[in-house]
Amino acid sequence: MPLYENLATRLRGQIRRGVLRPGERMPSLRGLGRQERVSVATAVEAYLQLEREGLVEARERSGYYVRAPTAPVPATRAIRLQSRVPQTLRNPALLGVLDVLLREDLLPLHVATPALELLPSAAIASATIRAMRRAPQSALDYGTPQGSRELRVQIAKRYLRAGVDIDPDEVVITAGAMEAISLALRSVTRSGDVVLLETPTYYGLLQAVAALGLRVIEVPNHAGSGIDVACLRTLLARHAVRAAVLVPNFNNPVGSCSNDADKRAIVAACAAHGVVLIEDDLYGELAYSGERPAPLRRFDAGGSVITCGSFSKTLAPGLRIGWALGAQRTPDIVRAKCFSTIATAMLPQLAIADYLARHDFDRALRRLRRELATNAQRWRAAILHHFPDGTRVSDPAGGMTLWLELADGIEGQALFEAALARGIGSLPGHLFSTRGDCRNHLRLGCGLRWSADIDAGLRELGRLATKLRGS
Amino acid sequence: MPLYENLATRLRGQIRRGVLRPGERMPSLRGLGRQERVSVATAVEAYLQLEREGLVEARERSGYYVRAPTAPVPATRAIRLQSRVPQTLRNPALLGVLDVLLREDLLPLHVATPALELLPSAAIASATIRAMRRAPQSALDYGTPQGSRELRVQIAKRYLRAGVDIDPDEVVITAGAMEAISLALRSVTRSGDVVLLETPTYYGLLQAVAALGLRVIEVPNHAGSGIDVACLRTLLARHAVRAAVLVPNFNNPVGSCSNDADKRAIVAACAAHGVVLIEDDLYGELAYSGERPAPLRRFDAGGSVITCGSFSKTLAPGLRIGWALGAQRTPDIVRAKCFSTIATAMLPQLAIADYLARHDFDRALRRLRRELATNAQRWRAAILHHFPDGTRVSDPAGGMTLWLELADGIEGQALFEAALARGIGSLPGHLFSTRGDCRNHLRLGCGLRWSADIDAGLRELGRLATKLRGS
Repeated sequence: MPLYENLATRLRGQIRRGVLRPGERMPSLRGLGRQERVSVATAVEAYLQLEREGLVEARERSGYYVRAPTAPVPATRAIRLQSRVPQTLRNPALLGVLDVLLREDLLPLHVATPALELLPSAAIASATIRAMRRAPQSALDYGTPQGSRELRVQIAKRYLRAGVDIDPDEVVITAGAMEAISLALRSVTRSGDVVLLETPTYYGLLQAVAALGLRVIEVPNHAGSGIDVACLRTLLARHAVRAAVLVPNFNNPVGSCSNDADKRAIVAACAAHGVVLIEDDLYGELAYSGERPAPLRRFDAGGSVITCGSFSKTLAPGLRIGWALGAQRTPDIVRAKCFSTIATAMLPQLAIADYLARHDFDRALRRLRRELATNAQRWRAAILHHFPDGTRVSDPAGGMTLWLELADGIEGQALFEAALARGIGSLPGHLFSTRGDCRNHLRLGCGLRWSADIDAGLRELGRLATKLRGS
Repeated sequence: MPLYENLATRLRGQIRRGVLRPGERMPSLRGLGRQERVSVATAVEAYLQLEREGLVEARERSGYYVRAPTAPVPATRAIRLQSRVPQTLRNPALLGVLDVLLREDLLPLHVATPALELLPSAAIASATIRAMRRAPQSALDYGTPQGSRELRVQIAKRYLRAGVDIDPDEVVITAGAMEAISLALRSVTRSGDVVLLETPTYYGLLQAVAALGLRVIEVPNHAGSGIDVACLRTLLARHAVRAAVLVPNFNNPVGSCSNDADKRAIVAACAAHGVVLIEDDLYGELAYSGERPAPLRRFDAGGSVITCGSFSKTLAPGLRIGWALGAQRTPDIVRAKCFSTIATAMLPQLAIADYLARHDFDRALRRLRRELATNAQRWRAAILHHFPDGTRVSDPAGGMTLWLELADGIEGQALFEAALARGIGSLPGHLFSTRGDCRNHLRLGCGLRWSADIDAGLRELGRLATKLRGS
């Protein structure tokens, strides 16, 4: 048996016995070499072997981490759609969800927002105070509807790093990504138009689409592979679709990411059918591997992809700063902005521009991604441990949501209600589809810091699921 | 001749000769008594006489001020409406106006925003820094869609002073009054519904209504007396109107204010016809007399008036903080907010709540109102002096807009364009009506600090108007 195999076997045992736990950092290569009296090359070989087995994963500049055990069944199954013709949204749960989101007394296992401790909050606070002191006039007076030029330049610079070369003049600053998407939809569609959405997808997109009186046609998003391109092509060929709102990078709830070939095909298909493509790139910077996946915009030659994003998941949720890259639609989006919120508050814009100019955002992102990746594995391990056998849980490569398929037909709504009664927040799966599909699913968010409370909450959720199965 | 008449004659002469100029403060009662060797009672009598003649006006806690000369013709004439059936908006100028509003190289005679020097900007800046330091967690994390409770309580307190007793739980914090109105419209109407608006009215309201695909029916707003109640009653009886969006207090552009009897009648008529009443109370705190006019809400027993307002004109335009008092519609408005901007930025909310709790907002408002009142008279005097004979200009009792009816059929659009070519901003009157009426009108904003530049700008505007008359 080669040396590295020997070492791998020892490490495998430590992981199986729980000496090394899911989400935990493995010893460094040098440390392992010293500890086990082997060369660094042998340590590398051993880790590569464990990685092939799915027991550990490498993270940028920070070594190897233990993964949660692979589920005995595939993480999630393909979604079956009930219908393939445009529908108006008929999902009463979409209105009810607000009451839950507003409750402040819940253990927030349902929230897809990073804890402030994972963000560079102190630096943002000082950047805000500095911006207020340095430019009180700009901070307090009306800004232009399009937003601070300084910030627009910084956003263009970030996209340059993602291989997308844009003009700061097409960046429109918004109150978060949802305003960006809502403005884009208002600029492009009229009541009754058909919009293509993924299933499952973020309930906020469904709500925005419903509020505008749009009809929906659904394309499946498969855990692991992302948007179903073949289906998308078929749907676009058959129906007059006005716009598509897609989340190609770490779709909420599934956490899937489409590959570049698929992205290229999606952009081409939409362009061929004259469909305006609105992409929600909210989680694009949150790949656990550290390799930022391309936005759809990267494959757009025709200026018809509107890319929306925000700093809400990476810097400061409460500052409410997002953007739309408006492409050819920039003037329409600026107008729609004028007709609703007129302009975005200036101080948060100046604060973020100041932060981006003076601080190491990439370093902050690395830390955040590491923490989220660790969280995802810890949560997965806890879920697979506490929930009934047969529970499937997604294995996201980025973002901060987990998508559970419950065992034995347990209803997401029933578990959600039982948990609510115990003060635990979760979201039933049917919130994430047009007409209440995904009834056996539950969505959790894993952006909080791991704690005994969270572990206890997941254990209680698992207990309730077991009880529901029995009933 | 009684002593006071004698004194009044002398003062009248000083005003006519321009020794005392429009907008200027008259000597204090005691000062005048000493100076003219008369009793304070005589000084009071003399000022009352001049006030009756329209030569001076009293301002709260600050004495008497010279008014601009009364125009040789009535300030403005009644608006004649071209049509009294619901119309979709067809006014291409509404889209073009944005380009002007975005230009930063203009002498901004068109802007209806107070200069930051007139606002308590230093106190707001320190309140912001204090809020950031005191509660970084609240400032940076997501707030609730409805907004900071602290701020909602402060807003409820302000309405209590206006005789309106509301529950903080019906206050929804928004990104300015325009978002409040836009959310209210989105909650209440569907594309194709009929909305009643004043003519003339703020172009932003027209844009918001057009963006939602609503049809409009117009009720005249007369300078001096405000909304035409008899016409409103007739229109509501004849047409199925879904909602009315009215600006009862210091309507922009006319500056008119409806009296309490009219307000009561408006609320009753809307209630009788099941019309949702959305009021824009943006200028309610800016009565030059210091007496805050009642919002329509004060006369609402049925919870069907949605009152919108903002701190943009009184504290800090750039913080983008407004509100809707949602009445029975509060949950719908919160939902509409969730589906677009999710929540308003928290730091500006905390900063304003802190300011309102610790500082004397009423004192700041008194100063602002004094300055605006002085501005309005100075601008009016300059306009009446520089523009061709026959020019009519509104004589607002609050707010910060002036509405000019140009002499001899001069087109507002022509003057606007000529001024633009000279780097001077103004707004053509047809922007303020559904289908481009008010073609001989021009709107100016008088919230800037008076300066030689402004005087020169108004002189140039007058010169251009004279030239256009000749051509």
